[in-house]
Amino acid sequence: MTRILDNDDVRQAIDLDECLEALATAYRDLPEGRSVHRPTSHIYAHHSMDDASYSFKSVEGAVERFGVLALRITSDIVRQETYNGAMRVEKLPLAGRGLFLGLVQVFSLETGELLGIMPDGVIQQTRVAITSALGAKALCRPEATRLGLIGTGGQARAHFRLLTHVLPIDTVKVYSPRPEHRQAFAEEMSTDAIEVEPTGSVASAVAGCDIICTATSTSTPIISGDLLQPGVHYNAIREFEIDESVYAKANVLGIHTKMGGIRHHLPPGIDDLPGIRQEKPRDWTVYPEISDFLSGRVPGRTDAAQITFFLNNIGTGVQFASMGHCILKAAEKMGLGKEVASDWFLQDIKP
Amino acid sequence: MTRILDNDDVRQAIDLDECLEALATAYRDLPEGRSVHRPTSHIYAHHSMDDASYSFKSVEGAVERFGVLALRITSDIVRQETYNGAMRVEKLPLAGRGLFLGLVQVFSLETGELLGIMPDGVIQQTRVAITSALGAKALCRPEATRLGLIGTGGQARAHFRLLTHVLPIDTVKVYSPRPEHRQAFAEEMSTDAIEVEPTGSVASAVAGCDIICTATSTSTPIISGDLLQPGVHYNAIREFEIDESVYAKANVLGIHTKMGGIRHHLPPGIDDLPGIRQEKPRDWTVYPEISDFLSGRVPGRTDAAQITFFLNNIGTGVQFASMGHCILKAAEKMGLGKEVASDWFLQDIKP
Repeated sequence: MTRILDNDDVRQAIDLDECLEALATAYRDLPEGRSVHRPTSHIYAHHSMDDASYSFKSVEGAVERFGVLALRITSDIVRQETYNGAMRVEKLPLAGRGLFLGLVQVFSLETGELLGIMPDGVIQQTRVAITSALGAKALCRPEATRLGLIGTGGQARAHFRLLTHVLPIDTVKVYSPRPEHRQAFAEEMSTDAIEVEPTGSVASAVAGCDIICTATSTSTPIISGDLLQPGVHYNAIREFEIDESVYAKANVLGIHTKMGGIRHHLPPGIDDLPGIRQEKPRDWTVYPEISDFLSGRVPGRTDAAQITFFLNNIGTGVQFASMGHCILKAAEKMGLGKEVASDWFLQDIKP
Repeated sequence: MTRILDNDDVRQAIDLDECLEALATAYRDLPEGRSVHRPTSHIYAHHSMDDASYSFKSVEGAVERFGVLALRITSDIVRQETYNGAMRVEKLPLAGRGLFLGLVQVFSLETGELLGIMPDGVIQQTRVAITSALGAKALCRPEATRLGLIGTGGQARAHFRLLTHVLPIDTVKVYSPRPEHRQAFAEEMSTDAIEVEPTGSVASAVAGCDIICTATSTSTPIISGDLLQPGVHYNAIREFEIDESVYAKANVLGIHTKMGGIRHHLPPGIDDLPGIRQEKPRDWTVYPEISDFLSGRVPGRTDAAQITFFLNNIGTGVQFASMGHCILKAAEKMGLGKEVASDWFLQDIKP
């Protein structure tokens, strides 16, 4: 059977501790030659709206221990937008009645079969935040209690959940350029144990914090090296959030993956399309990656005064394979989603 | 609605002339910046059987005129086998009850939605053969009547159909290392208009032919330059079928795509796994590709005595987008396949 889930099913199926452990295991298996992934491909085409483009992203990865490969795809219409002088890429909900398409498809390494299809929305936010949390556990001072959070969207919420899950955080200062967003975020996320305070600038959000996290869709740098004080750990989810001075200021710098950036493919002869963000060419192989810290090949923080920086530089298929495995296992146990015959997606012709 | 087809649906939906025209159009649109594709990715993992590997292939491409992007994936267990001294890669039918997984997924460039899912079996053979037929129309002497065909599998059958469709072929000599295969092929494919004769060697199959076609899964070269006589057109479907002397012997050499070979991704530290064929590194950009011939940028055959060679070097997403578009259009008109709500594959979370 092939199991087809929606985001509610995925939400019910996710156990954070189990996913944290699964991802840590998959990262440790990578240098052992027991996990595999490839760089993300991004392919673009013209859209009928002049200021938008069609964008299709694909990436896959396998974790042998879990017996699965996951393919993650997104099929988006994207537009570059500016708010308060900051550029960001906006996805337009043109599918169905205001919906988006992002899918994780999970395949058996043993038989080749398609085991499940699920939306990538909840997984996407969770898998990025889990990797940030694993990075923070390796690099942050363990007694960190004060978090400065920039961003109030889905990624910011997921990072709030995961960072407060793995660290003894009791105070969060949150900034978003839109006052109503930061206000709403603070009201929604505050708990008895964690005080969330909206604040009016990036500088005031990060001042005096043990850990800083940016979780934005900005295309304009918002963090520079002078904002990083001794002892702090900084987590960024894309290189677009930081300026060059951050690389120099960090005493310990780790990244998610040495594979580095997205491979962009435009139609022949077309140099640019609306909503495309090209990463700066950079040799990512010189930085230690999360698997180096988790497998003990590279030490993490060695001194409380160090400035540590984890750049969650790009997603990998290994994240989706690990999450997909945990979710499908739980969904089967809980009887979640729709089941259709595997034959829908099989054939007797040898391709 | 998302339409889910099987191979019988695809077979019914395919109109060869329409697909030939669609692919030719997509190739002509490529240098105009109105079609787009990316190199194929191939990712491998260990399999529980020591002499096999798991292999996942993905590629995508879009044709703006048709309003679609197609993703093609295969999820295979592969094994290297030897027959009569020739090595070849065999796919093992371990999914379901002796089945394979290969899918084409078609997305709307306008909304991002998933329009259809179909097996790649019939499409795969047809799209390769269509490109070979377009190459033959550009390079072969138009009065070619005698075809030498090496191979009797699905690709050989599809090439037989397409080459006899676009050229006035009346005689086919067919060779396969297994006598029972070439005998069965000859009996099945002979018609009133086309005599098909099984023959006992590559040399006897190609002798005196106007056009030679190899459509095999061999990993050992079977055609060398000395088999190519003045005036002949030779079509190969993979570089593994030929030795280096063929490149030198051809007066006019065309390829399918300058993008060249597959990008192979193995687990870190693993150099080889069973069933992997690594292409020889080669600068494919120096050869004219099919879009150059079809758009008139590069002349095809200019002299009846020339030896022409078309190497259908690797598949592209543009082929699957063109075929997927034609098939879905026909399937809708004919009411083929299953329809499921698009919502199965959509979400309200911005990924």
